[in-house]
Amino acid sequence: MKKPIVINIAHAIKSRLMEKHSFRDDYSEGAHPRILEALQRHNDGQTEGYGMDRYCMEAARLIKEKIRQIDSIVHFVSGGTQANLLVLSALLRPYESVIAASSAHIAVHEAGSVEATGHKINLVETSDGKLNPMQIDQVLKNHRDEHMVKPRVVFISQSTESGTLYRKNELEKLSIYCKKKGLYLYMDGARLAVALTANTNNLSLLELADLVDVFYIGGTKNGALLGEAIVITNPYFQNNFRYIMKQKGALLAKGRLFGIQFMEMFRDGLYFELGQNANARAAELAEGIRSAGYSFSTPPISNQIFPIFPHTLIAHLQKKFGFYIWEKAGMGHSIIRLVTSWATPESAIRDFIKEMNDGPFK
Amino acid sequence: MKKPIVINIAHAIKSRLMEKHSFRDDYSEGAHPRILEALQRHNDGQTEGYGMDRYCMEAARLIKEKIRQIDSIVHFVSGGTQANLLVLSALLRPYESVIAASSAHIAVHEAGSVEATGHKINLVETSDGKLNPMQIDQVLKNHRDEHMVKPRVVFISQSTESGTLYRKNELEKLSIYCKKKGLYLYMDGARLAVALTANTNNLSLLELADLVDVFYIGGTKNGALLGEAIVITNPYFQNNFRYIMKQKGALLAKGRLFGIQFMEMFRDGLYFELGQNANARAAELAEGIRSAGYSFSTPPISNQIFPIFPHTLIAHLQKKFGFYIWEKAGMGHSIIRLVTSWATPESAIRDFIKEMNDGPFK
Amino acid sequence: MKKPIVINIAHAIKSRLMEKHSFRDDYSEGAHPRILEALQRHNDGQTEGYGMDRYCMEAARLIKEKIRQIDSIVHFVSGGTQANLLVLSALLRPYESVIAASSAHIAVHEAGSVEATGHKINLVETSDGKLNPMQIDQVLKNHRDEHMVKPRVVFISQSTESGTLYRKNELEKLSIYCKKKGLYLYMDGARLAVALTANTNNLSLLELADLVDVFYIGGTKNGALLGEAIVITNPYFQNNFRYIMKQKGALLAKGRLFGIQFMEMFRDGLYFELGQNANARAAELAEGIRSAGYSFSTPPISNQIFPIFPHTLIAHLQKKFGFYIWEKAGMGHSIIRLVTSWATPESAIRDFIKEMNDGPFK
Amino acid sequence: MKKPIVINIAHAIKSRLMEKHSFRDDYSEGAHPRILEALQRHNDGQTEGYGMDRYCMEAARLIKEKIRQIDSIVHFVSGGTQANLLVLSALLRPYESVIAASSAHIAVHEAGSVEATGHKINLVETSDGKLNPMQIDQVLKNHRDEHMVKPRVVFISQSTESGTLYRKNELEKLSIYCKKKGLYLYMDGARLAVALTANTNNLSLLELADLVDVFYIGGTKNGALLGEAIVITNPYFQNNFRYIMKQKGALLAKGRLFGIQFMEMFRDGLYFELGQNANARAAELAEGIRSAGYSFSTPPISNQIFPIFPHTLIAHLQKKFGFYIWEKAGMGHSIIRLVTSWATPESAIRDFIKEMNDGPFK
Repeated sequence: MKKPIVINIAHAIKSRLMEKHSFRDDYSEGAHPRILEALQRHNDGQTEGYGMDRYCMEAARLIKEKIRQIDSIVHFVSGGTQANLLVLSALLRPYESVIAASSAHIAVHEAGSVEATGHKINLVETSDGKLNPMQIDQVLKNHRDEHMVKPRVVFISQSTESGTLYRKNELEKLSIYCKKKGLYLYMDGARLAVALTANTNNLSLLELADLVDVFYIGGTKNGALLGEAIVITNPYFQNNFRYIMKQKGALLAKGRLFGIQFMEMFRDGLYFELGQNANARAAELAEGIRSAGYSFSTPPISNQIFPIFPHTLIAHLQKKFGFYIWEKAGMGHSIIRLVTSWATPESAIRDFIKEMNDGPFK
Repeated sequence: MKKPIVINIAHAIKSRLMEKHSFRDDYSEGAHPRILEALQRHNDGQTEGYGMDRYCMEAARLIKEKIRQIDSIVHFVSGGTQANLLVLSALLRPYESVIAASSAHIAVHEAGSVEATGHKINLVETSDGKLNPMQIDQVLKNHRDEHMVKPRVVFISQSTESGTLYRKNELEKLSIYCKKKGLYLYMDGARLAVALTANTNNLSLLELADLVDVFYIGGTKNGALLGEAIVITNPYFQNNFRYIMKQKGALLAKGRLFGIQFMEMFRDGLYFELGQNANARAAELAEGIRSAGYSFSTPPISNQIFPIFPHTLIAHLQKKFGFYIWEKAGMGHSIIRLVTSWATPESAIRDFIKEMNDGPFK
Repeated sequence: MKKPIVINIAHAIKSRLMEKHSFRDDYSEGAHPRILEALQRHNDGQTEGYGMDRYCMEAARLIKEKIRQIDSIVHFVSGGTQANLLVLSALLRPYESVIAASSAHIAVHEAGSVEATGHKINLVETSDGKLNPMQIDQVLKNHRDEHMVKPRVVFISQSTESGTLYRKNELEKLSIYCKKKGLYLYMDGARLAVALTANTNNLSLLELADLVDVFYIGGTKNGALLGEAIVITNPYFQNNFRYIMKQKGALLAKGRLFGIQFMEMFRDGLYFELGQNANARAAELAEGIRSAGYSFSTPPISNQIFPIFPHTLIAHLQKKFGFYIWEKAGMGHSIIRLVTSWATPESAIRDFIKEMNDGPFK
Repeated sequence: MKKPIVINIAHAIKSRLMEKHSFRDDYSEGAHPRILEALQRHNDGQTEGYGMDRYCMEAARLIKEKIRQIDSIVHFVSGGTQANLLVLSALLRPYESVIAASSAHIAVHEAGSVEATGHKINLVETSDGKLNPMQIDQVLKNHRDEHMVKPRVVFISQSTESGTLYRKNELEKLSIYCKKKGLYLYMDGARLAVALTANTNNLSLLELADLVDVFYIGGTKNGALLGEAIVITNPYFQNNFRYIMKQKGALLAKGRLFGIQFMEMFRDGLYFELGQNANARAAELAEGIRSAGYSFSTPPISNQIFPIFPHTLIAHLQKKFGFYIWEKAGMGHSIIRLVTSWATPESAIRDFIKEMNDGPFK
C-alpha cells in the first residue's frame, strides 16, 4: 500500500536527530580543519580593518595569480546572495535589468534581493539551467524602447542549480555574444569548486576568468566558515565597489576572517581538493543508484545529483536520510536532489545505497 | 509576391503624415471638448493646492456615490504607471511580491517600475490575460519560506491587455480566494470605461468596487487630458497614501486639474458615454473584419481587437493606417492590434474596412 | 493684550471662504487664459504619445533656441518633486549623494523623495538658501572614503526658498568649482520665471544654461496647468533619461499637454511676462510694508517676501488673508511669507496694505 | 618648530609596520581564544542551515534568559551596518524616517545605507551624541504633513559615538516619550559590552531590553570574529524579519558560526569580562593623560576617550601609535580619539603614557 509522500522543497526546521546523514546541501557542516587551524595561527596581532589587511591582500594575490589577471580586483563577502546583489547593484543603472534562467538562484531563492535593489530579472525558461545566445537574443528583441527595462547583464551559474556545467565553447560563445551586444557577463560561482574539479569539466578557472566581466569563487559551500571572493576583471567596474559593499552592510570590520580562509584555500590547492571530494562522493552515490537501475532527470556531473525514485522508496529513505524532493515525475515517481560536500563521509554513501537496495519498492 | 513585414511592437517615432488614421492606442487624441470647457469654466479663483480643492472633493464625492462606499478614499494621479507603483508601494512590505499575468502592463510595459520600488512580480502565464484562483494557488504553493518572496497582492486589469473582461462570477471567485489567503486584490482600470460599457460585460462599477481592495478609474484613455482616480476601499490602506504620492512625485500642486476633469466626467455619465463610443467603433471594425472572412486571436469584446491578417494585407494597410503588429501567427500571418477610442470617427472605420477589402491579399 | 498666535507652516485644509485673498503660494490659481486657449486650438487631431508629438518637439526647439544649445535635450514632466527625483536618479550612482542647503525643497518639502530613490542629501546650513564653493568644499573634505557617501551633485534653486537669487558671478564660481571637483551642478527652476525677471537679476537664461549640467524651467508656478521643462545640457546624461521617466511614472501618455503649454509660453515671451507680473505685485506689496515701517528677514527680491510683523498684526491679517507664518522672530514678532503670482490682482495688494495700516498693532 | 599635522579621520590604508600599537578601533585584533576554541569544539556534525541550528537556538535562549523576555526574538547578523539597515527596513514604511544624532553611525559612517533602503534620517545636533525627548519633540513639530517625511523611529547608541552613555532615567524618559508619540525606539549596541560594564553605568541589559523595541548586542567589537545579535522585543516586528535578512544578503548559510560564538560569550559571562577589560585599559590610559595635565572633550567613560592634545604632541605620538585625529580644538590643539579593546595589552598603555610624557611639547 502506498504511503502519503510529503512534497516539501522548503527548508524543514524539524529535528534531524533520527537522520543518519543529510544530503540536503553542502553547507550543513562546519569548516575544514585547516581553515580553523589557519584562523588560530593568524589570530594574534592587529591588522587594518575592513578587508585592507595583509591576509586579504595575500589571498587576493593568490587568486589573481591563478587567473593571471594581476589587474583584476578581488573583494571578499559573506555569502552568495550578498555577492549577487552587490555585483548587480554595481553593474546596472536604475532602468537596466539582468537576464537569468528562470531556475536561477537570484530568480527563485534569494527572496527578491535583486528586485529589492530596484532591478527586474528577465526570465528565460531552460531545461538544464544554462543560457545560450539565441535565448538571450530573443529577450533583447522583446525589449526595444523605454516602456520596457533595458537588459544589460547576463547572469549564469557554474555549476548551475541543476548541477550542470557550461562547456568551454559554450561560455566562449556566450562571452562573444555579450561583448557584441554590449551586455555584461556575470558568473555566480557558489559551487565553482565542484565545477572546476568535475570529471567532465573542460573549462579552467583561468579560462573562465577571461570570458566573464565579474565572477565569484564560492567558499561557504566548499569548506569555509563563510566567504565568497568576488573577482572583477572588467576595469570599468573596479572603482567604488567598496562603497556599494559598505552601503549594503557587506564590508566586514574584521575582514581578516575572509583573508585567512581564502589564503589557506588557495595557497596549495585545498580549494580544489575539497571540490574533488564532494564530486567523488557524488560519483559513488550516482554509480550506486545507476547500478540499482534508477535513472536521473539530468546526468550526474557535479555534487548535486537528481535521481528519479518511486514514492515508496522516497518514503523509506526519508526515515534515515535528509534530502529535498525536487519535483514530481509522474507515475508515482519524483525527482529528489542529493547533495554531497567536501565533508560527506564514504560511510554515508554506503549507508544510503544499502538502504536504497533494501527490499522491493514499487 | 510577399513583401517583407517589419514586426515592430515598439512605439514608432516616425512621421505619421501619410497616415489616414492611427489605431495604435486610445490616447493619441486631445481631450473631449466638455473637459476643456470645464477647465475654462472653473479656471478663475484660488483653491487649496495638492488635491485638497473643492473640485477634487466633489469629483471624489461623485465617484464614492457611484460605488456607494462613502468611506472609501479617492486620490487623483497623472497616469497608469504612476497609479500602479503608488498603490503597490502602499500595499507591499519590502519582502512581499505581486502576482500578475505575464502579459500584464506592470510586467512588460512599465520599464520595471514595480521592481524599482523594490518588489518582485510573480508571473503567471495566461492565454487571455486573466488570472484565476488555481493559478494563484500554484504560486502560493511555490513560495513557502523566507528564501523566496512572499506574494501579497494580486494584480488584475479590467479590461486586460488582451481586451478581455473578468465576468462577475470570475471576479467574485478571485475576491473570495484572495480574502481566504490574506492576499489583496488590486484592479488596474486604465480601460475601465470600455470594460464597464462593453456589450457582454456583466460586472458593474458598484460590484467591482465591492470585490477589490483598491482599483483605479482611468481617465487618460477615456477622453481626459490626463488623470486616473485611485479608489481605496480597504480601510487598512487609506491612511498615509498622500505621503507616498508626494514622495513619488505624484502630488500635483494644481490638483484642481484632476478634480475638474473627473467632476465633468462623472456628473452626468460622460465617462460611460465615451467608453461606449470606443466600443461601438471597435464593434463596427470587428464586424467588417469578420465579414471579410478573417478571424481573431481573442474574441473582440472591448476597444482593443486582435485580428489575424496575412502579411500581404498587413503591408497594404500599413501604408494608410497606424497599428501595432502584436505577434506572429505562423503560415504568413500575424496578429495585429487595433485600438479605437472615444474620438475615433466612423469614417476611419469605413476607410479601414474599405482598404482591407481592396483586392486579394494572399 | 496679546492673542495666541497659531504658528502653522503646514498646508491648512480649512475653509477659505472668508479670505479676501491667499498669499500662500503661486499655484492656487488656474492657468493663464492663453494656455487654455492654446489647448483648445490644438486639441484636434492625433499625435504620437509619450512626449514624441509635434508640440513637444516645437516647445523643446523654442527652449533650445533661447539657450542657444541646440544639442541639449528637453523633457517635460508634471511637477517639481518629480523633476528633482528623476534628475537625481539619472545623475547619481547608488553610493553617491547630493549636496543641498538645509532649507532646500528636496531636503524639507518633498517627503523624502530623494532618499526614496536611495540617495543621501548632504545638508549645508545657510542664511539665505544659497550655496558657495567654500561650503561645498567643507562637505567634500568630510567625505573621504567608502564609509561615507560620495557627494556628486550640487543642488541649487533659482530663486531659492528664501526668495533670493544667485548673481551671475556667484553661479560662475560655483560652476567652475564643480567642474574642478568632478561635481555636477543641477538647478531647480520651479520659480525660474520670477528669478529671470527680477529687477536685480543679472543672470540670463542663456548664461545659466551654460553654467549648469541640468536645470528645469518651472511652469506650474508660472501660469501653466502643470509642467516643468527639464533641460539636460551635459551630453553625458542625455541618453536613457526617458527610461527613468517611464520607470518613475513620469512619462505622460498625452505628452502634447506639456508641449502645447510650453510652446505657448515660449513662442512670444508669455513665460517672462507672467514672471514680471508676479514680481511687480510683490514689489508693490513690499513697498507698502516698508512704507508702514516694517522690515524683512531677507530683502524682497522676487515673488516671495518675508516681512517681520508683530503677532497682533499677524492675527489681524489672518482674518482676511491667507499666508504662512514662517518662523518666530522673538519679541512678539514672527516672520511671515507672502507669495504673489502672475494672477495676483492689484486690488489684493491694496487690500492687504490697507488692512495692515488699519489701526495700531503692538 | 611646528610640524604639519595631517587631519585625517578616514581609515588610513598605509603600512603600520612601524607602529607599536594601534588605538584606532576595537576590531583590529582577531577573536578571543575561547571563541576559536568553541568553533573547533563544535565543528563536527551536520546542522540545519541559515541560523536554525542548535547553537543559534541555545545562544538565543541564553540571551533571552538574561533579559527575562522569553518571547523576544533573536537574530544573528554579520555586522553593525547590516543590523541597522535590516532593523530600519523592518520598522519603517516607505515614507517614514528615523531620528538620529547628527554624529550617529548611521548618519555619517554607513555610506548612506539607510537612505539606500529609501529612508531619510532626521538629524539632531548634540554635544555628546545623546538624544532627549525635547529634541525629538522639535523634530515632530517640524514634520506635520505629507510634504515631509513622517518620523517613526528614534535611533540611539549605547555607548554613543562620543563614548557617552544613556543613564537609566534618561532612557526611561526617552522610552516613555516614544511610546506616547507612537515612535519606536531602537538601540545600536555595537559597543554594548563596554557600556554595560562601565564604572558609571547604571543601566542593565535587563532594564534596557525592557525600554526599547529593538536593540542589538555587538560581538564584532567585543572579541568575536564577527556577529551582532539583534533582539526584537516588540512583538509587532517579530514576524517576517528573516525575509528581510534573506533579501538583504544577511542570512548566513552556516549560521552556526554565529550561534557558537554567542553561546560561548553568554554561557558564563565572557561577554561582560571582555567589555570590562576594554574599559579597564581605557581608564588607565585616561588616568595617565589626566595626570599629565591634559583635558578631554567629553569625560572618559567607556573604551573611547577623546583627549585634547597640542599638535606637537600629536605629531610625536603618531610616530609610534595609531589613532584618529577627531576634530580641531583651536589654539594649536586637536581632539584625538583613543580606543581600547578586550585585547589591548597593559604594556601598550604604559608605552603610550611614557611617550606622552617624553619631553615638553608646545
